[in-house]
Amino acid sequence: MTDYGKIAQQVMSRCDELGKISQSDEYLDRRYLTAEHKQANELVGGWMTQAGMQTWQDEAGNLCGRLESKTPNAPRYLIGSHLDTVPNGGKYDGMLGVITPISLIQAITDQSVELPFHLDLVGFGDEEGTRFRSTLLGSRALTGQWPAEWRDVEDSDGVSLPDALKTFGLDFDNVKNAAIDNSNLLGYLEFHIEQGPVLEDEDLPVGVVSAIAGAKRFDLAVKGMAGHAGTVPMPLRQDALCAVSEMILVVEKVAKEHGIVATVGQINNRPNGVNVISGNTQFSLDIRSEFDEKRDAGLAQIMAEIHTIAARRNVTLDMTQTHSATAVHCDPALQGVLRNAIEHAGHRVLTLPSGAGHDAMAIADICPVAMLFMRCDKGISHNPAEAITTPDVAVALEVLDHAIRNLNI
Amino acid sequence: MTDYGKIAQQVMSRCDELGKISQSDEYLDRRYLTAEHKQANELVGGWMTQAGMQTWQDEAGNLCGRLESKTPNAPRYLIGSHLDTVPNGGKYDGMLGVITPISLIQAITDQSVELPFHLDLVGFGDEEGTRFRSTLLGSRALTGQWPAEWRDVEDSDGVSLPDALKTFGLDFDNVKNAAIDNSNLLGYLEFHIEQGPVLEDEDLPVGVVSAIAGAKRFDLAVKGMAGHAGTVPMPLRQDALCAVSEMILVVEKVAKEHGIVATVGQINNRPNGVNVISGNTQFSLDIRSEFDEKRDAGLAQIMAEIHTIAARRNVTLDMTQTHSATAVHCDPALQGVLRNAIEHAGHRVLTLPSGAGHDAMAIADICPVAMLFMRCDKGISHNPAEAITTPDVAVALEVLDHAIRNLNI
Repeated sequence: MTDYGKIAQQVMSRCDELGKISQSDEYLDRRYLTAEHKQANELVGGWMTQAGMQTWQDEAGNLCGRLESKTPNAPRYLIGSHLDTVPNGGKYDGMLGVITPISLIQAITDQSVELPFHLDLVGFGDEEGTRFRSTLLGSRALTGQWPAEWRDVEDSDGVSLPDALKTFGLDFDNVKNAAIDNSNLLGYLEFHIEQGPVLEDEDLPVGVVSAIAGAKRFDLAVKGMAGHAGTVPMPLRQDALCAVSEMILVVEKVAKEHGIVATVGQINNRPNGVNVISGNTQFSLDIRSEFDEKRDAGLAQIMAEIHTIAARRNVTLDMTQTHSATAVHCDPALQGVLRNAIEHAGHRVLTLPSGAGHDAMAIADICPVAMLFMRCDKGISHNPAEAITTPDVAVALEVLDHAIRNLNI
Repeated sequence: MTDYGKIAQQVMSRCDELGKISQSDEYLDRRYLTAEHKQANELVGGWMTQAGMQTWQDEAGNLCGRLESKTPNAPRYLIGSHLDTVPNGGKYDGMLGVITPISLIQAITDQSVELPFHLDLVGFGDEEGTRFRSTLLGSRALTGQWPAEWRDVEDSDGVSLPDALKTFGLDFDNVKNAAIDNSNLLGYLEFHIEQGPVLEDEDLPVGVVSAIAGAKRFDLAVKGMAGHAGTVPMPLRQDALCAVSEMILVVEKVAKEHGIVATVGQINNRPNGVNVISGNTQFSLDIRSEFDEKRDAGLAQIMAEIHTIAARRNVTLDMTQTHSATAVHCDPALQGVLRNAIEHAGHRVLTLPSGAGHDAMAIADICPVAMLFMRCDKGISHNPAEAITTPDVAVALEVLDHAIRNLNI
C-alpha cells in the first residue's frame, strides 16, 4: 500500500528546495537559459536519476527523464510541466507538475511495477515566456515549432536567444533536434495548480481540465474631448472615461451572459487630472473560452455594443487585435482515465476549463493531451503567496498513480 | 460715437504682445513673482498710464491703476482680472480682463467723460496658483486674507514665498498693507473668457455670470481582489475596475439628474496588466454647482449609490475629501447693470454660472461682485489653442462701456 501522505511530504520539501534557486535575492525569479535554470535542471535531474530514470537535457534546455519499459517496442506516454517561473512567482506553478511525478515514479520503481509503456517526464525550460516575451519555448521545441524569427528575439538586456542558448551550452541551429518522434507517443499528461478559485470554491482537491481556453486580446482607445471639470455642462461633454466605463460594464455583462471570461485589466487615461474631463482613454480587452465559438459570439456582441456606446456618446473608438489563440480540447479518453482515478480515490469529479495557458497547449499539436488541476489557496498564483496543502498533494498522487497504471496502450 | 471695433483691434494686438512675455521659450508660462511677472506689470502699467490712470504696484505685486473721479469724496468701483498664466496656457485667460478695461478707459479719457466714482483697475499677480499651489494669492492680498502658514510654502524649486517676494522687491510682512479699505468700495466687475462651451453653443458673444460654483473634491479608492484574467470565473470576481466603472456612471447620471457638474477626471488602476483582474482602483471626484445645496444633495445621492455598489460587489471603498469651497453668488444689482448693457447692445441676455474659479471669488469677501463672460472658441482654455474673435471683443467693449457708465452710486 503506497503511503501517499509520506510521498506528499517529500514533494512539498522538494518544492521548497527548488523554490530557493532564484536569480533574485528578494523573490523567486528563474528564467529560461539562466545559470539558475541550469542549477534547477541539475537538482531535478538528480531526483529523476535517483527515481530510476534515464536523464538528459535536450537541445532546447528542457530536462528529460525516462522510466523505461521492459516491453519490446513499447509505446510511450509523456508527462510534464515547466521549471521556469515569473518574476516574484510562487514555488508550485509548473514545478509541482515535475516534482510530483518524480516522487510517484520513485514509488513505482520501489514497488518494481512494470509499465507497458515508456514513461517520459519533461521539465520544460520555458513556459512563462518572461525572458523572451514569447511563451512555451520549451514545449514548442518538442513539437518542432520554433519559428525562424526567434533567431532575432532579445531579452530586456539585449541578449539574443541564440546567444543565450550558446551561453547555456546549446546551439540555436540544433534546437530542431529537440523535436520528438510522435509515431509511438500515445498522449501527454500535465499536473498543475489551478491558478484560479474554482476547486476551492467547490471544496475539491483536484479536477479534470476539459479544455485550455483560447484567448483573444485587443487594445482599445476612446477619444472624446478634454475640458474643464467646472465649465462644461454635462450634456455638452464627450467624456472618454465615462464612455469607457460603460464599455467595461458591457464586457462584464456579456461575459456573464455567455458563460465566458472577459477582462478589462488595463486602463490609461489622459489628461488624468482631478479637474479635467477625460479626453483620451485607452483600455485592454482579454476574452477567453474553452469554446472558440462561444468566445467569438460574446466578442461580436461586445464589439456591437461598444460601437453603439461610442456613437451615442459622440466619441471615436479605435482598436487593434494583439493576440489570438484557439482553444485546445483535452482528449476524452485521457479525461476518462483521470475521472476514473478521481472516483477511485473517493472524490467527486469536477471538470473545469483552464483559462490560463499551459505546456499542454503546445504538446496538443503532436498527441492527445489531458490535465489534472489541483486546488491552490484562494486561487492565487504568479505571487509569492501561492500555497497548497500536503493532503491535497497526497490526493493528487493517488489520482495520478491510479491514472498512470490505467493508461491505455 | 465710440468705435468699438477699432478698440477691439487694439485689445487683440495687446493680448498678442503681452502673450509673448513668458518664462518658457516654447510656450506661454508666466508665474507669480518671476522676472516675467515684473515685465508684464511694466508693459501693462505703461498702457494704464497712457490711458490716463494713476498707476502703481501694491505690496503683493498686483498692478493697480486708478481713473480718478473729480467728484469730492467719490466712492469707487474695482475692475480686474489676473496677469499670470498656467504653464502652456492661452493669452486671453485673465489678461483679456485687464487689457480690455484699459482700452475702454482710454476711450473714456479721450472723450473726457467724467465718472462719479474712482474706477480702480487691478491686474492680479496670481490667480492660477501654479507657482505656490494655492490659488488667488493676488486677490486674497487685496482682501487681507493671506494666512500665516503661507510664510512656509515653497515653489517646486524650493523657493519660499517670502524669498520670492524679496527677489521681486517686496516683503512678506508688508503684504498685509495691500489690503484695501472697502468702506467706500461699491463693487467689483470682472470680465473673463468663459473657458467653457455654453456661449458658443447658445451662439452668443457674452453672458452674465449668476454665481461662481462651489466645488468639493474627493479621492476615492476601491479595493477588490486581483486575479488571473483567464482562471477566475465572472461570478467569483471582485473586480475593482468594474466597480469603479459603475461608480463613474453613477456620478455622471446623478449630475445630469440634479443639474450640476460632477467629474471623475483621474483614475489609477493596479496591477493594470492586460491579463490581470484589477485589485485596486483609485479615482477622483470633482463636484460643483452654483448652489451649494444642489451640489450637496447630488453628492449625498452619489455617496449612497456608490456605497451600495461597493457592498453588492464585495469590494471596499475608502474616500478622503481633498477640497471644499462654497459658491459665490454675483450681486443682483450689478448683474442687472450688465443685463441692461447687453440688451442695449442688441443681444439676447443669457445668465450662466461659472464652473471655474475666478478672482471675483476672493473679492466677494469685501464687496458685491459681478462677472461678464465672453465666448471662446470651443470653450478651450488653459491651452495654446485658446481663441477669441475681434467682433466678440467689440461687443464686450460696448457692453462694458454701457455698464460702467451706468453703475449705481
